[in-house]
Amino acid sequence: MSTTENAQTETPKSQPKTNTPLDLTSYHRIVVLTEGHTTPFSAKTAIGLLRFRGEDVVALLDSQAPASTTGECLGHGGDTPIVASLSEVDRPDALFIGISPPGGRLPAAMRKAIYDAAEAGIDVVSGLHDHMIEDEELAAIASRTGAKLIDVRRNRFRDTAKHATFPENSVRVHTVGHDCSVGKMFTALEIERELLKRNENALFLATGQTGIMISGRGIPIDSVVSDFVNGSIEGMILENSSHDYLLIEGQGSAVHPAFSAVTVGLLHGCAPHGLILCYEATRETTKGLDHVPLKSLSELRTLYEMLASARNPCQVIGVAMNGRRISPEEAEVEKARVAEELGLPVCDVYRDGPGVLADAVLELGKKVRS
Amino acid sequence: MSTTENAQTETPKSQPKTNTPLDLTSYHRIVVLTEGHTTPFSAKTAIGLLRFRGEDVVALLDSQAPASTTGECLGHGGDTPIVASLSEVDRPDALFIGISPPGGRLPAAMRKAIYDAAEAGIDVVSGLHDHMIEDEELAAIASRTGAKLIDVRRNRFRDTAKHATFPENSVRVHTVGHDCSVGKMFTALEIERELLKRNENALFLATGQTGIMISGRGIPIDSVVSDFVNGSIEGMILENSSHDYLLIEGQGSAVHPAFSAVTVGLLHGCAPHGLILCYEATRETTKGLDHVPLKSLSELRTLYEMLASARNPCQVIGVAMNGRRISPEEAEVEKARVAEELGLPVCDVYRDGPGVLADAVLELGKKVRS
Repeated sequence: MSTTENAQTETPKSQPKTNTPLDLTSYHRIVVLTEGHTTPFSAKTAIGLLRFRGEDVVALLDSQAPASTTGECLGHGGDTPIVASLSEVDRPDALFIGISPPGGRLPAAMRKAIYDAAEAGIDVVSGLHDHMIEDEELAAIASRTGAKLIDVRRNRFRDTAKHATFPENSVRVHTVGHDCSVGKMFTALEIERELLKRNENALFLATGQTGIMISGRGIPIDSVVSDFVNGSIEGMILENSSHDYLLIEGQGSAVHPAFSAVTVGLLHGCAPHGLILCYEATRETTKGLDHVPLKSLSELRTLYEMLASARNPCQVIGVAMNGRRISPEEAEVEKARVAEELGLPVCDVYRDGPGVLADAVLELGKKVRS
Repeated sequence: MSTTENAQTETPKSQPKTNTPLDLTSYHRIVVLTEGHTTPFSAKTAIGLLRFRGEDVVALLDSQAPASTTGECLGHGGDTPIVASLSEVDRPDALFIGISPPGGRLPAAMRKAIYDAAEAGIDVVSGLHDHMIEDEELAAIASRTGAKLIDVRRNRFRDTAKHATFPENSVRVHTVGHDCSVGKMFTALEIERELLKRNENALFLATGQTGIMISGRGIPIDSVVSDFVNGSIEGMILENSSHDYLLIEGQGSAVHPAFSAVTVGLLHGCAPHGLILCYEATRETTKGLDHVPLKSLSELRTLYEMLASARNPCQVIGVAMNGRRISPEEAEVEKARVAEELGLPVCDVYRDGPGVLADAVLELGKKVRS
């Protein structure tokens, strides 16, 4: 498999020239830093790492956490301990910053733990827009101790899209949503797992920092210069089209006030054959922007299909309903309602597994290849 | 008027921290560099400068040009001479790079003229993605002679959009198109001129390098990191909403294979009340991507209105038909056909002036304020 990696180690002050492949999956004793950010939204990266790389995470570092295990505190990772200091952890091989706030700033409270890690010669992986290597003091410490500072979002993508011809046998499925943080990465990863279980040649392609930290590769699309958003994704698709199924992580929403540039460029860059529409039941306003009501699923379906079909015919093939705020009984009612309204398979991936969506992907595959 | 400027002068190797206001309109003896790029598409920036700042342009620098005046060579600027060397020009105060190729690379053939200018202490203004200040040799020369190297596209916008409440009395009109290079900047500038003539308090807001070089301010939106596209435009609107009419330059197309991220983020960031749909008659395929057919105007109208109305109700209020490839007679037929099909005012701004579109903007203003 070809890699489309983006993280770079750099000596301080040098201009990043290329995107050096860096295998983030080589770390197996990861400490995840949240330091006071343990709500489900703010600890999104930590939760993703615990769920999909739980075996590589040895501790959560958070001196403010209201519990002693990640299972108790974040609902993932079971007995993985929460520690107040890096020195409590046996042989950590990396510190991963476990948050992904809008705007991507580094909270001041996290600085000490990062400095401590660098001082101890431990690599630090960050998905923030604030790049560690621009902190001269930190860079000097890392340079002295040999710790790598890996800024996952740092990149120099410079190719515009060419509307390239994609290989016909590789089926592209893209998760889109009505908002941020509704399960687009989660759904794509779970479908990949399910297809691999069924012995299909499937590959998850990350487009955000958490997905990159989990899968070890991808494009941090929201930090690519806008002229090159479509082109960088097109390049990633071309490099990975030896796979029969590509599950491309979506971002934001096509009508999100802040992030639609990212969403639409990504959509056009990957030119999907099919979309999975992800939403959270009962969410009615935009996350972090409560004054912005969300569009209905049928409006969004029309819009996404219209936008996506710019390149090749594309339809929504299923719906991933995130039922974290409703009971199992309410979830059944909600799924039935949406299945009826849209005439599509609907599932709550967390509770039900991604089986019906994986079925829909395979069905799409037959159509595309026929 | 508040400015939202972006160009920066920097000492070599320093990190750009802020967007230093820099009045590009203070130059009045500009030499425009095209060096072998004099087709209408490749010399887009030069043509824009000649048309809208003709009084400030003293020469075109191009040792390959097939004519001796810009009027002859580019159809704009009348007798403005074309020279083969900067030394032929009397007291130039700046060298403006006159091209804006897709991808924004600096052609190697232009390097000598830029070095010569810097060596002579003359400021250089570039709108390319290749930033002059990253060329250490050039930066050293400029540092020694005092020449400023102004990379118009260099920026550090870092604000996400908040779906801010915009002042109610400022009417936002945005030019959108079926492709690149069809007249979106031209149309917005011409409508601004027309409204100013009618004593309206109107302001053109540039979103591309040429528009910034012409008006002296704006946001080089295609070089903003994608997460901050919507937010940087929202900020520009907030800063300029003391004007009764804002004419916001559009970019690309919402279904452009390469540039839709830019287009849609810009559209959502400025949340227009009305759109002017710009197209070139007889163009059927995407510029530079001949294998990609363009969508029909009515399809585009539906799509743009659907996308734009995410924030507030927004409609296409007029059509700017670019008739450069058709005769005046054909243009009349074409305008009538489109006016009939879409039920909207249509004009060829270049031949007819922007009168009917300015009327449509004022009509929209009445509705918005009623």
